[in-house]
Amino acid sequence: MAASLCEIFEARSVAVVGASKDPLKAGHQVVRTLLSVGYLGKIYPVNPNEEEILGLPCYRSISEIEGPLDLIVVSLPGRAAITVMEEAALRGDIKGAVVLSGGFAETAIPENAEAQRQLAEIARRAGIRVFGPNCIGIMNPETKLVTGFHPGVSLIPGNIGYITQSGALGGSLVTLALSQPRPLGFARFAHVGNMCDVSNVELIEDYGNDPRIGVILVYLEGVRDGRGFMRVVSQVTRKKPVLVLKVGRTEIGARATLSHTGTLAGTDAVYSGAFKQCGAVRASTMRDLIAGAKAISMLPRPRGRRVCILTEAGGMGVISTDEVEAGGVLKLAPMTPETCQKLTTSLPPMAMVCKPNGYVDMSAAAMPREIGEALRLVLSDPNVDMVVLNSIPPTFKPAMDVAQAIVPVIKEFDKPVATCFTVNAAMDETRRYLEENGIPTFDTPDEAVRALAMLTEATFRAGQPFVDVPTANHPILDRAVAEGRHLLEPEALEFLRDHGIAAMPHVLARTREEAQRAAREMNGPVALKVVSPQVIHKSDVGGVKLHLQGDEAVGQGYDRLIEDVRRAVVGADIHGVLVVPMAPPGTEVIIGMVRDAQFGPTIMFGLGGVFVELFKDVSFRVAPFDEEVARDMIRETRAYRLLQGLRGEKAKDIASLVQLLVQVSRFAAQYPQIREIDLNPVRVHEDGYSILDARILLE
Amino acid sequence: MAASLCEIFEARSVAVVGASKDPLKAGHQVVRTLLSVGYLGKIYPVNPNEEEILGLPCYRSISEIEGPLDLIVVSLPGRAAITVMEEAALRGDIKGAVVLSGGFAETAIPENAEAQRQLAEIARRAGIRVFGPNCIGIMNPETKLVTGFHPGVSLIPGNIGYITQSGALGGSLVTLALSQPRPLGFARFAHVGNMCDVSNVELIEDYGNDPRIGVILVYLEGVRDGRGFMRVVSQVTRKKPVLVLKVGRTEIGARATLSHTGTLAGTDAVYSGAFKQCGAVRASTMRDLIAGAKAISMLPRPRGRRVCILTEAGGMGVISTDEVEAGGVLKLAPMTPETCQKLTTSLPPMAMVCKPNGYVDMSAAAMPREIGEALRLVLSDPNVDMVVLNSIPPTFKPAMDVAQAIVPVIKEFDKPVATCFTVNAAMDETRRYLEENGIPTFDTPDEAVRALAMLTEATFRAGQPFVDVPTANHPILDRAVAEGRHLLEPEALEFLRDHGIAAMPHVLARTREEAQRAAREMNGPVALKVVSPQVIHKSDVGGVKLHLQGDEAVGQGYDRLIEDVRRAVVGADIHGVLVVPMAPPGTEVIIGMVRDAQFGPTIMFGLGGVFVELFKDVSFRVAPFDEEVARDMIRETRAYRLLQGLRGEKAKDIASLVQLLVQVSRFAAQYPQIREIDLNPVRVHEDGYSILDARILLE
Repeated sequence: MAASLCEIFEARSVAVVGASKDPLKAGHQVVRTLLSVGYLGKIYPVNPNEEEILGLPCYRSISEIEGPLDLIVVSLPGRAAITVMEEAALRGDIKGAVVLSGGFAETAIPENAEAQRQLAEIARRAGIRVFGPNCIGIMNPETKLVTGFHPGVSLIPGNIGYITQSGALGGSLVTLALSQPRPLGFARFAHVGNMCDVSNVELIEDYGNDPRIGVILVYLEGVRDGRGFMRVVSQVTRKKPVLVLKVGRTEIGARATLSHTGTLAGTDAVYSGAFKQCGAVRASTMRDLIAGAKAISMLPRPRGRRVCILTEAGGMGVISTDEVEAGGVLKLAPMTPETCQKLTTSLPPMAMVCKPNGYVDMSAAAMPREIGEALRLVLSDPNVDMVVLNSIPPTFKPAMDVAQAIVPVIKEFDKPVATCFTVNAAMDETRRYLEENGIPTFDTPDEAVRALAMLTEATFRAGQPFVDVPTANHPILDRAVAEGRHLLEPEALEFLRDHGIAAMPHVLARTREEAQRAAREMNGPVALKVVSPQVIHKSDVGGVKLHLQGDEAVGQGYDRLIEDVRRAVVGADIHGVLVVPMAPPGTEVIIGMVRDAQFGPTIMFGLGGVFVELFKDVSFRVAPFDEEVARDMIRETRAYRLLQGLRGEKAKDIASLVQLLVQVSRFAAQYPQIREIDLNPVRVHEDGYSILDARILLE
Repeated sequence: MAASLCEIFEARSVAVVGASKDPLKAGHQVVRTLLSVGYLGKIYPVNPNEEEILGLPCYRSISEIEGPLDLIVVSLPGRAAITVMEEAALRGDIKGAVVLSGGFAETAIPENAEAQRQLAEIARRAGIRVFGPNCIGIMNPETKLVTGFHPGVSLIPGNIGYITQSGALGGSLVTLALSQPRPLGFARFAHVGNMCDVSNVELIEDYGNDPRIGVILVYLEGVRDGRGFMRVVSQVTRKKPVLVLKVGRTEIGARATLSHTGTLAGTDAVYSGAFKQCGAVRASTMRDLIAGAKAISMLPRPRGRRVCILTEAGGMGVISTDEVEAGGVLKLAPMTPETCQKLTTSLPPMAMVCKPNGYVDMSAAAMPREIGEALRLVLSDPNVDMVVLNSIPPTFKPAMDVAQAIVPVIKEFDKPVATCFTVNAAMDETRRYLEENGIPTFDTPDEAVRALAMLTEATFRAGQPFVDVPTANHPILDRAVAEGRHLLEPEALEFLRDHGIAAMPHVLARTREEAQRAAREMNGPVALKVVSPQVIHKSDVGGVKLHLQGDEAVGQGYDRLIEDVRRAVVGADIHGVLVVPMAPPGTEVIIGMVRDAQFGPTIMFGLGGVFVELFKDVSFRVAPFDEEVARDMIRETRAYRLLQGLRGEKAKDIASLVQLLVQVSRFAAQYPQIREIDLNPVRVHEDGYSILDARILLE
């Protein structure tokens, strides 16, 4: 049985295979780093051509090493790495391997990918867990285990669990974390490289179960198994925050193929939706990731979203307030009249108190004692969940005095306080003092607000468990698959109805007279729509006629429709013409399903019409999901305000739309035969909805 | 005659009035700072109660100072400051005064505002220019003149001219500038405080004429005279870049009162439009302002917008590329096949060259010589205007070697290169070396791209001269003003026609029969619209009937309209019913005019319908403006893509829309009697446009 990842992080002995005397070689640098940081376990350099390296006896091969061996770090090119893995398999005691060497699958050369497969297979059979290849491996600051060779990276123990898909950027982020006034502390660092075995998803799960870890930081370029990611992360975020920096945000996926709106289904938008759905918080820049990690690892959880901005300088206060409003996560705290009154009394007359409420400009005239008192008043207010304190003391008011005045006040309360003391070498000591007292400091007033926003999102956005549904068959799908075609519209409507979805009443007319009869029975204006397996975009070929009323209009419409389609699609097999009543007015939205390469069946929601394309105002979630996720999905788009009733219009039936989204998400996950769903538009009325067009394409 | 601002910056003698022995007093700190930075002029402490301060003889009053006196720094409260100004006026040789003291107009207490007015008036009569009150004044790094007391601020000479509206934030930004690997150099620093005399606009003009200044940096909370700002900045940006950090970006102006879209006319959106119009570049954060200033002050101007991303690490490269695409200012350089071929040959086999074109991942295996060579190849390509170089050397490749390889290459070319060497204490020396060689370094790969984007905007966005038009009268306006009402719709249409704007054909019908006759003559479906001074929102009261054709329909429509309006607006004075033909199809846009408190007549453009409100996708410009500004205004919104023809639709007549915007902007500036204009919607056809509703409200 393979070892747990924890046993590998806790390795008590490491062999560095490919150790070298050449200071420019990675195999040298790993040994040197282990020695210099003071690794608590045993270090075995392995190199058949050396007697000793950096004062340590050198072994000809790992088989020569006596005593137990937990971990090997392999710094040898392709084939040689495989040979080492074979030797490692023979020993039987090795729990893990970090393969530093590149030149495997990342090169996109078939032989190299095959070599990686072999390497993984040998390790799997021997129960050895592999990090990499092409990675700088792992660090455990507690035991001073470091398998990488990034300059200047030397972790300090703490509660952050870190996972990176890029060694270089991973290292950069760590150095950013270490360059804070008080370096951030880590419990674990792992670079996954090519992920031939240990994946970022497995690490998230492992960190989730590790009581040492309070917050998980992930640098992500992509996940291989999106649904596995959803299952794991939605569980982990119920226990601790997961903060993600995902790059590639503008790469509009060419894969996404929603028929009408193909350019929209950007993979990155799917990632964003998936993160929200499973409760992960997305940071937008490297700096924000570190700022968020600092806030989450240092601060108590807020009880709500209400922030008070307390500032010594108007400019900084305005920047903070801008960020509160623009960020949309926090809101200014509606402080009680008593608090505002007391603040006015205790602050200098130049202070601007609660204009607007939740914003207090204490003025530069406020002295340390007054600042401390204002902070106490604000933190005592039950309507304040957290505080941003901006301070730019002039020289006549030493920054350290302000810091010493606020530290005891903050400790009286269990509420998060983020501080921004102006960026300035003269502030370094003060900032260090604050951070050593558990109070995070940020470089700019907007960063402080974003950090609290990430803390708040992490607090209130736990994932719903992501549970897949079993796959199934359906006779309508089976028949179409057998005939090698997509669903015809009447079939699509029937299929929807079979899944509890209210489709429009409709009649398939095969003659002019049948159409007229159906229209008469519908007793109002109707639409005619061609039914033909050859016609996907009906409107484009004259296959839709709207607003027809009366025998004459319907008959003429029928004839013209047949004529237009025959002319536009020569040889089209016309099964008939669908007669449907014209739907009552409402707000038009679009619901789509596409199979994402990573996340599988994924539902898109947005406003209908050209505006989808123009504003890209759509939201994505991974199917299946429940009502709560569906509601979030609607709220995320501007369609929400329209559905709520803009400018005195009556509110539309959002509850029925929520149900529809949930139902579509369920059968999308249930039937892998379905490649795409396009309900476009769905017109949402004050009561219920009408699906004006339903297309279901099969694989 | 008052002195020029330049003479004040070059002051050869300074009296500090209110100098003190108490180290916590500003009056002490100013003297100490002048001494410690080594001010090249004479320093005269003034305090009737001291013999000497910090080793300098102290004067009882400024009248006692012998020899010429150029500048006084006043650190005394309200009344005392006025007395000092009176004394200063008597001397006759004083050119300028910096009033540090607060407690004037910023307190919003009437007596204090009056004191400020007195202070300014005394100075004005004496020809003394005043900075402040409530400000930290000015700095001239050349002569080491510093009138402020911000901790740690000590400027290094350079080509940046800096203007700030906040002393504290201004100081913060300067310390950020000074904390760069090579501190940024300044030519001038000025904090304007309450602007009782010298304003930020005057300083921009002054800096614009100062050959020492290469780039103007402005921290702005607001301008008092928006049109003066437009006139000055649009001239200055033709000579040198103006980079602005404007805060208060979310304060949706309550002032803005476009009738239908009142919530949209946010003052900040007006500022954004005004900046674009006059050629100022807006930075979005404090960090970006400094990054932009660094790029602009250090780099040559790019010849185009095409950037090559050259990276040693995929993650950083992707972050840069994301920012190029998301920022929308730059685009990836379409390098020639020869360049791509040569790069492939000269870089290690692991490198990913031109996937996509313009993006080169050299891989961690690229050694300094190869990096230098790749950079040379890229810079030699005529399709490359600038380069971002990301480097994260592992320890086996010292960063300094990379820096030394690229410096000579960059010096061979006259193209901007921005570098991002990973944030890391171990990189400090390398970054300093690069910056001392004129190559700016940035902390993160996205920051490097944004800095180049600001440089590019500054290069290609010079302002058009802003020229006001003389005000005028018009009989239609005169009549309505005299009758104390807004324009009726037929008047508005006539007024538009008088200004060369194609209004719809229309007939004012006073009876059912007149309406029928007019409709018959229009020979097609018509719309009826009530004309009544009491009815502003016609649709809301049933005052609009659409799609009427034939005598019966028109007659019924007329009757119902009158009935509906009479019921909804009891006692409405109905002048008649406007009969207009239904307009052909097209794209609906909105053109509005509102009088902004700062910028005066301001034009808004956006998509029509509820989407204006939903997406706030509108652009603003200050009236009057020319075709180029109008085109920018259209391009800035998503309406542009719709007007160009989405999904195979034919393009609409954008040229006619440009003309319409220009015409509206002209008469908006010409007639101060007009408070608001609302052409909503304007339907733009393939040829021409129809103004479907025109409302002109008067003051």
